[in-house]
Amino acid sequence: MRIHVQNPEAVHMEVSPELWHEACARAGAIAEGHEISFGTDEAAFAAAMQTADILITATSALAKRIPFTAPRLKMVFCTSAGVDRLMPADWLPPGAKLLNNSGVHSAKSGEYAAMALLMLNARIPGAIAAQQTGTWKPFLTPTLRGKHVTVVGTGTLGAAAARAARQFGAHVTGVRRGHDPHPDFDAVVSTDRLDDILPTSQFLVLACPLTAATRNLMTRQRLERLPKGAGIVNVGRGGLVEQEALCDLLDSGHLRGAILDVFVPEPLPQGHRVWTTKNLVATAHMAADDPTTYYSDSLDIFFTNLTALVDGHPLPNLVDLTHGY
Amino acid sequence: MRIHVQNPEAVHMEVSPELWHEACARAGAIAEGHEISFGTDEAAFAAAMQTADILITATSALAKRIPFTAPRLKMVFCTSAGVDRLMPADWLPPGAKLLNNSGVHSAKSGEYAAMALLMLNARIPGAIAAQQTGTWKPFLTPTLRGKHVTVVGTGTLGAAAARAARQFGAHVTGVRRGHDPHPDFDAVVSTDRLDDILPTSQFLVLACPLTAATRNLMTRQRLERLPKGAGIVNVGRGGLVEQEALCDLLDSGHLRGAILDVFVPEPLPQGHRVWTTKNLVATAHMAADDPTTYYSDSLDIFFTNLTALVDGHPLPNLVDLTHGY
Repeated sequence: MRIHVQNPEAVHMEVSPELWHEACARAGAIAEGHEISFGTDEAAFAAAMQTADILITATSALAKRIPFTAPRLKMVFCTSAGVDRLMPADWLPPGAKLLNNSGVHSAKSGEYAAMALLMLNARIPGAIAAQQTGTWKPFLTPTLRGKHVTVVGTGTLGAAAARAARQFGAHVTGVRRGHDPHPDFDAVVSTDRLDDILPTSQFLVLACPLTAATRNLMTRQRLERLPKGAGIVNVGRGGLVEQEALCDLLDSGHLRGAILDVFVPEPLPQGHRVWTTKNLVATAHMAADDPTTYYSDSLDIFFTNLTALVDGHPLPNLVDLTHGY
Repeated sequence: MRIHVQNPEAVHMEVSPELWHEACARAGAIAEGHEISFGTDEAAFAAAMQTADILITATSALAKRIPFTAPRLKMVFCTSAGVDRLMPADWLPPGAKLLNNSGVHSAKSGEYAAMALLMLNARIPGAIAAQQTGTWKPFLTPTLRGKHVTVVGTGTLGAAAARAARQFGAHVTGVRRGHDPHPDFDAVVSTDRLDDILPTSQFLVLACPLTAATRNLMTRQRLERLPKGAGIVNVGRGGLVEQEALCDLLDSGHLRGAILDVFVPEPLPQGHRVWTTKNLVATAHMAADDPTTYYSDSLDIFFTNLTALVDGHPLPNLVDLTHGY
């Protein structure tokens, strides 16, 4: 096949020829016989799209080139788990399949979720604030064992968060579109029951895709349903939560802490309210990315999907265009 | 036996009659037939010591009453793991045994160690500093898996830290007085080999007692042996490390972060250098205490030791007066 890799311009090459060849060696026969090209600028993209069967691209490098012409394109593999910036996918050539990179983030984001829950439970946001005023203020708290953690999203990120929380003995309820049980969760409820379980959720982890159905899922009203003293973690997308309401409820003390990795907008500008909201720890969209393994793992996921395509099997990372993830 | 509980004055009663009676119910026959008293002030202490066989006390409530007269005293159970403030134990009546509360802290301190290692590995100290200046600064880091963590101390706290680090796939080396293997560690070396392993220790956790042998164990010279970018956690005692040198090496950037729970002095006063040292997160001696279980667990440990005393078996929590822990 004719495969093109479109890397972002501003950063160093992400999927380098070297990484590609290493991934081909790992993948074996499925990686043989293809014609590969690499590009970063507009001219390279336009030229490659005339003949490419498969496009491998950062979401950012693709979003700004929509719509485009690609008469032979069969598959687009995005090196992000979230493809919300590509929706609706009306730009996708007829018959072409859109794939996300779900799975690449689980180890790192599981560590982030464990860290964030332990920080919230130990009241580290309060300790940071006390340190900033030079005040000795012990927060003596119980362990995480037996605490009620609700995780919205039971995909790769959500399941990693659930495993992390259960390592420390927390009781974890997953919230998903359906309500099928999931082995990494103590219980699973469907999204329409979210309102019912918020009042007993001592910690809430947002780990679902941003879609038409989940945008502003955590409205002010829902945030207020969390019990006083609750903590919130967001490793999904900033748009999942009504950010101003979240800041209000932290400043008022109804919520005791938040560890957030995603925001609206990104990057957060200087002077934005989020930076100085009480008991809010903000990290710059870094929860899920392990730079030492990210692109090699991504290419392994790509070849797994390519094998499925060639064999006529369901593609593990196929984006459901109706639901947007 | 005649048992006296001396609680600190300034705080609410720690070992209350209610907790005592609940513990007696759990302990069974060994808890029957004793005469119990509770006190917080000097008069109650002096009166009780005339007849007491056993003293249960917070270290703080005992330290300020040394020396004292207690002609019948056989056993002193301190509700702290560290008894450094009671050393040398020349005040102990002849034949009386000093017991610490080792074991009560393990679940909470294990969580703290896991949190601190994850925070250092994810460069949260840098993220906090970026937030304070309103700057969007992603730190993309690999996971903790395969990282080299050295834990000084293989007792209750050290072993809990080791288990926490190994949950995330770190390679953990313990440092102890001897060099017997320990099931919670990948490797164990004796203290005289500390200098050899510091250069490959990406993270150093201090979790040992403060004794004559460990005071200032981490001198400036030893801290400098840690590799550039290393992180340090202290859940033991502030006096284990040359604090000024630690601050210097954080401010210079040789060390990338520190999560510290113990200091010299405590409480840290307003304006102390520690509060504003670069990439240092300070918590107020709260790493190991779970207020919901602390005193009930302590009393369970007490009755385990009382059983051993009555049966003539070795006391699990006996302090070795030569080594000071």
